[in-house]
Amino acid sequence: MTIGIFDSGVGGLTVFKSIAENFPETDLYYLGDTARVPYGNKSPSTIKRYSEECASFLTSNFSVDALVIACNTASSYAIDFIREKFGIPVIGVVVPGSFQAVKTSINKKIGIIGTNGTVKSRAYYNTIKKMCADIDVYQKACPLFVPLVEEGRINHEITDMAIKEYIGKLHSKGIDTLILGCTHYPLLKERIKSIFPELSIVDSAEAILDDIKNLDITFKESGKREIFVTDDACSFEKFAEQILGKTKISEVNIEK
Amino acid sequence: MTIGIFDSGVGGLTVFKSIAENFPETDLYYLGDTARVPYGNKSPSTIKRYSEECASFLTSNFSVDALVIACNTASSYAIDFIREKFGIPVIGVVVPGSFQAVKTSINKKIGIIGTNGTVKSRAYYNTIKKMCADIDVYQKACPLFVPLVEEGRINHEITDMAIKEYIGKLHSKGIDTLILGCTHYPLLKERIKSIFPELSIVDSAEAILDDIKNLDITFKESGKREIFVTDDACSFEKFAEQILGKTKISEVNIEK
Repeated sequence: MTIGIFDSGVGGLTVFKSIAENFPETDLYYLGDTARVPYGNKSPSTIKRYSEECASFLTSNFSVDALVIACNTASSYAIDFIREKFGIPVIGVVVPGSFQAVKTSINKKIGIIGTNGTVKSRAYYNTIKKMCADIDVYQKACPLFVPLVEEGRINHEITDMAIKEYIGKLHSKGIDTLILGCTHYPLLKERIKSIFPELSIVDSAEAILDDIKNLDITFKESGKREIFVTDDACSFEKFAEQILGKTKISEVNIEK
Repeated sequence: MTIGIFDSGVGGLTVFKSIAENFPETDLYYLGDTARVPYGNKSPSTIKRYSEECASFLTSNFSVDALVIACNTASSYAIDFIREKFGIPVIGVVVPGSFQAVKTSINKKIGIIGTNGTVKSRAYYNTIKKMCADIDVYQKACPLFVPLVEEGRINHEITDMAIKEYIGKLHSKGIDTLILGCTHYPLLKERIKSIFPELSIVDSAEAILDDIKNLDITFKESGKREIFVTDDACSFEKFAEQILGKTKISEVNIEK
């Protein structure tokens, strides 16, 4: 099976890594739209247009059997549109993450953290409510987390303060389960766990693995992996290395 | 005189406001490339391409006599390219800001804060060194400031910590003058002043006014003002209001 994965940037490499480790025989092509990152504050119509250009690059250059939208914002706004447009299976992070959270929560109180866009879209909120109407769902946008992670401030006083403030607001509602609704956030998972050890944490990069397993396509490929970005590759190598170790990244132009 | 102003987003409205207040008789057209904001982490070639599309929108839709690049990152990387390409006067923020700082500093130690892109470009650094080789120049990228300002955390514990950490590093070098090398930073000016009262602060939005006064063009227009963005206008109205008060913003598509 050949899977195309796209994301607004390089945060989605957390999803790429998880798929690569669990399905070593798949061919994986990753595209990070780093020339236009982040999608988090952009409008639904712009996010759809960018997502279409990403999907189009992957499907027209590689014989992709399925697409994974690693970006939570793009999954929230563009998945139905992409599914319809490209006619192949499309897996986003919202449904698997929501499903995992619903299975995990005991007290039926779930918290979601994400970018402004993901929170505004209410995609996780609505998906969880559809799965189980009597679950209480609380959301919190955390715009500082992405720059904190990108600055490498994983263990840092400011990061701890931001975690306490953002997640504290959800914690005070009595949630027992927290969805990390942004690809950058898994890098903060250990800090969040140490500050709020009683929370069960759902990481979409893990939650999507079942959906991939269920794709009705034979696994016969050679384990090829290629990573593309839409802006100068060098500047992302350091960040990519945090997630994947030393990695080759190539630059492409996808704007129509 | 008709002036076209462009910026990666709506932060440049601090520059727009300063020009509008000081030259009420000019016609001003502002474009914020909010669909691709921020430019701060993007590569020189991408920043040049985006800047060209911005300049092209303004010059082809309005009879613009001069362009102002409000974005520090675009001023750092694209000003010579834009000047050559469009053949009209182009004013960036780097030269006026540097000049103002050189005039202001008594002990000949200047600090610059900006995005990763602006700092990496060394544009302020090189400009100041050319003006006066024996000035010591220190730079610090402050990636948290933009999201802090956009979240409206002007008077906030995290913002104060970030100010102390970022600017403290420059302060310990003995600087007496600090250039705010990003259009969002003027919104933090009062906090910075209260934490480091001994620093003279240079704001490019004010520093460019002399350059505009020196443009050899008659001022005969009617004081028209129009503001455009490349992504959904609504989401920027709140931020724009912080700077300008209630303002009409229109959406345009400039991608080629």
